[in-house]
Amino acid sequence: MGEFELIRRHFVRPSPSNTGVVLGIGDDAALLQPSPGLQWVVSCDMLVAGRHFFNDAPPEGLGHKALAVNLSDLAAMGARPVAFTLALALPQANEAWLTAFARGLFALADAHHCSLIGGDTTRGPLNLCLTVMGEIAPGQALRRDAAQVGDDIYISGGLGAAHLALAWLQGQSWAHQAVGPQLPDALRARLERPTPRVALGRALVGVASSAMDLSDGLAGDVQHLLTASGCGAVINLDAASQDPALLALPADLRQRCAAVGGDDYELLFTAASDQRAAVQTAAERSQTSVTRIGHLTAATGVQWQNAGGQRIEAGWQSFDHFAQ
Amino acid sequence: MGEFELIRRHFVRPSPSNTGVVLGIGDDAALLQPSPGLQWVVSCDMLVAGRHFFNDAPPEGLGHKALAVNLSDLAAMGARPVAFTLALALPQANEAWLTAFARGLFALADAHHCSLIGGDTTRGPLNLCLTVMGEIAPGQALRRDAAQVGDDIYISGGLGAAHLALAWLQGQSWAHQAVGPQLPDALRARLERPTPRVALGRALVGVASSAMDLSDGLAGDVQHLLTASGCGAVINLDAASQDPALLALPADLRQRCAAVGGDDYELLFTAASDQRAAVQTAAERSQTSVTRIGHLTAATGVQWQNAGGQRIEAGWQSFDHFAQ
Repeated sequence: MGEFELIRRHFVRPSPSNTGVVLGIGDDAALLQPSPGLQWVVSCDMLVAGRHFFNDAPPEGLGHKALAVNLSDLAAMGARPVAFTLALALPQANEAWLTAFARGLFALADAHHCSLIGGDTTRGPLNLCLTVMGEIAPGQALRRDAAQVGDDIYISGGLGAAHLALAWLQGQSWAHQAVGPQLPDALRARLERPTPRVALGRALVGVASSAMDLSDGLAGDVQHLLTASGCGAVINLDAASQDPALLALPADLRQRCAAVGGDDYELLFTAASDQRAAVQTAAERSQTSVTRIGHLTAATGVQWQNAGGQRIEAGWQSFDHFAQ
Repeated sequence: MGEFELIRRHFVRPSPSNTGVVLGIGDDAALLQPSPGLQWVVSCDMLVAGRHFFNDAPPEGLGHKALAVNLSDLAAMGARPVAFTLALALPQANEAWLTAFARGLFALADAHHCSLIGGDTTRGPLNLCLTVMGEIAPGQALRRDAAQVGDDIYISGGLGAAHLALAWLQGQSWAHQAVGPQLPDALRARLERPTPRVALGRALVGVASSAMDLSDGLAGDVQHLLTASGCGAVINLDAASQDPALLALPADLRQRCAAVGGDDYELLFTAASDQRAAVQTAAERSQTSVTRIGHLTAATGVQWQNAGGQRIEAGWQSFDHFAQ
């Protein structure tokens, strides 16, 4: 099967799911009609086999995750997804793999009315690169640089479960001790099928003062928001590590999973303290749980505390692809 | 040096070169303000080491080419470039390599007022994935499916020189015979630093009936345009193989280079025969040579001819990344 037949069979669909798409796959470029007056929100993520996922990762989950991590970036801006491109380097054209990959990809794309409008396929070491585009009204985007001292800090969903699932798959004994000899599907899904918090992100527009998504772990990621906004934080790590999937772990491991575990794709956001009711309303409207985990301070850096307000000493670092 | 320092040092620049960029690199996503009433044009290309370029390819040329092949897609739609994302998988963070790569990339980006607005960096087998965005007025894009029977067919610049340079670098004897023991810089540049025909594409809006860019060779690529427009073609292969870089080759090899050589990134376009003067004006305005190489027919398929109108039998195929 050739490249063009491969594209046709798996990625060209009769009608784009989005009416803003004037011309989809098949020409030199796609054509989109932006909604009048809105801004365009663009993000790009590359997933490499052996680095972001196991070489033998189930392809349906991979199709889901490749798009999910990109939609998560739009969610963190409060944007409505519109369309995406997909570039795919494949060691070989494996029919069954592609069928499952496309199934996972389009199930999530359809759920968000986000159209595949173009891309590229080539032979090479397995690599998935997506660029996703969305829309938002001018001045409404949830940027990282707009948080204010005194604002509350929240997370969506729960942190650390993806890290626990990864540690189990890597054969780490503490994970096997906590989880047991079988990895439950629900826990595995936290790693392989993260839920992009698009509905919550959109509901937080006008409510949150800033937002970002958590991909490399709370401890490292929060620093980017604090640096951009020029402030520090006090974070209650007990509040941040209440995910039910972690309850079998001792407290210190639970905290560690929540603080340094990557792959959560939850939102970290801030809001003024007079917005607490509005934050709850946004959480209910989007059917997404949120937890207040701390507040922003004028003093820079992060002070980690337990539920009793006692300091936790931590030297955690975020995941860095090029760290020595 | 870590991932974030790497990004900061090489890819974050003080001010975006484009005023439509509201927010560039550094947040979860970039923000762009589309021009009122215009359509958005989006294309994506992935370049893999060992497949699209040699592992030891000079990085400055690679920075140029990675963006050039994407701008070429915008050119083929007649669009004005606005912005692009860059995802980069690197085996290691090599300072000298990145400096040269960024120099080549930004020189071309600046020449087209096209802003780098975001992307991703990760460790992995060398892979470059760009998504480029541009603008055009509704209904003005040069699509592949709008050519009409009787229209003239044109190419920009010349075909086959990139293929000759590649064959020389691969040590093929016919190429060494024609070129000699040294590969001239100008010929090497045809492979490593293609010129995206953005100015010509924009000048052809309202003049050409259809357009596409030539990346996998005339013989295969033209079929995509013919299929999309539902017609066939008569092509004068002598006219299509007049690139001065090929003159040292025997006629049959010259024709073969022009017909099946990839990597030209020239435009293939069609225009009604009463637009010949307008095509010449577009060529002059954009300072890009164009050559009329044939016309479209109601009978499907391509009839290859020489300058005397005699049929040339050819079984050429385009490059296909997954051909068996």
